[in-house]
Amino acid sequence: MAKLHLVIGNKNYSSWSLRPFMALSMAHIPFEESIIPLQRPDTKRRIREHSGAGKVPVLKHGKLTVWESIAILEYLAEMFPDRRLWPDGKAARAAARSMANEMHCGFAALRNACPMNLKRPRKAISLSEEVKADIARIDGLWRDCRKSYGKKGRFLFGAFGNADAMYAPVVTRFDTYDIKVSPESRAYMDAVLATPAFQNWKKAALQEKWVLDDVEVA
Amino acid sequence: MAKLHLVIGNKNYSSWSLRPFMALSMAHIPFEESIIPLQRPDTKRRIREHSGAGKVPVLKHGKLTVWESIAILEYLAEMFPDRRLWPDGKAARAAARSMANEMHCGFAALRNACPMNLKRPRKAISLSEEVKADIARIDGLWRDCRKSYGKKGRFLFGAFGNADAMYAPVVTRFDTYDIKVSPESRAYMDAVLATPAFQNWKKAALQEKWVLDDVEVA
Repeated sequence: MAKLHLVIGNKNYSSWSLRPFMALSMAHIPFEESIIPLQRPDTKRRIREHSGAGKVPVLKHGKLTVWESIAILEYLAEMFPDRRLWPDGKAARAAARSMANEMHCGFAALRNACPMNLKRPRKAISLSEEVKADIARIDGLWRDCRKSYGKKGRFLFGAFGNADAMYAPVVTRFDTYDIKVSPESRAYMDAVLATPAFQNWKKAALQEKWVLDDVEVA
Repeated sequence: MAKLHLVIGNKNYSSWSLRPFMALSMAHIPFEESIIPLQRPDTKRRIREHSGAGKVPVLKHGKLTVWESIAILEYLAEMFPDRRLWPDGKAARAAARSMANEMHCGFAALRNACPMNLKRPRKAISLSEEVKADIARIDGLWRDCRKSYGKKGRFLFGAFGNADAMYAPVVTRFDTYDIKVSPESRAYMDAVLATPAFQNWKKAALQEKWVLDDVEVA
């Protein structure tokens, strides 16, 4: 089988890129990666060499190009069914996909106010009502999901899967901006942050030299 | 099997709701529908009775609730595999999911400038460069997809499927705002607009009394 090749942005900032990286790494699927630093003069051109959508992440597999994080996660689930990236059971799988898709386009207030930034020292910021509503919704989703489906492990549906991959950047945001959540959600966050996959990603992020001024929040 | 129940917004305006309606109808899957008029004092409360995410569409199936349009489309593809809502072939399926997901969160300029509004008389408006870029991207995607995968039918991957369902609202926008696209894309649009499913939806939309002033574009 052709080797998988993941094209991503800077590890410190590219929350989109973290998702397929987490899924691939946690499922022990071998892959190569290329990093294209964001917001530089040649960024757009370099990404478009891989995908007409002009966005990272992009997964290349032989002649095949898959773009958009959820499409990549679905592709991995299909190609590697034994890794169970979606949970067993149609109710759990429907919940996992609903949650993953709610994350895909949702929570704009949180994402704008609290950009992923792994180098930022942990420090709380003042939060708008809209951001608080996003946090409450996510906290409730995590808590309910762990209770309904996650009993056999430390992640949303027990073992680590695509839903966790989609929420991994939010886990870092809640941690970086010192956002208070329920004890159940905090335990879930700690489980994600402690994974070897995330630790590897963070180690690489901390060594990056690129700084994007417009996503630095004091 | 329990009956499927689709909760949607006004048919004239709710582009999100049109998607699962098209997939269900074109796949001849029986379902009931409930319409919750948007932007009314009790809208939020009524939607939340069905889904904590507070958004339409919502699919209910016995005790199960599926929310977010792509999660609903994936659920239908899993439950009714003989309807082939995703195309056969891993490359085609990966392309269909990538395109569907690019639509899910993308093309914000187009969506803001040209809201779905089936009662609006067809009339061109002035388009910003951002909107033109969205149009060019979609036109290219449709044309390339029809050429690579659509030869055996009139839709993106031949027979009507989930990718077409995701783009159906864009088809109406291009038509309503008289947006010029390639002949190949126009033929595709005509195929979607001519489906019995869309004709049924539009007929109901034209009979609705609700008007949302803030999405009416002169």
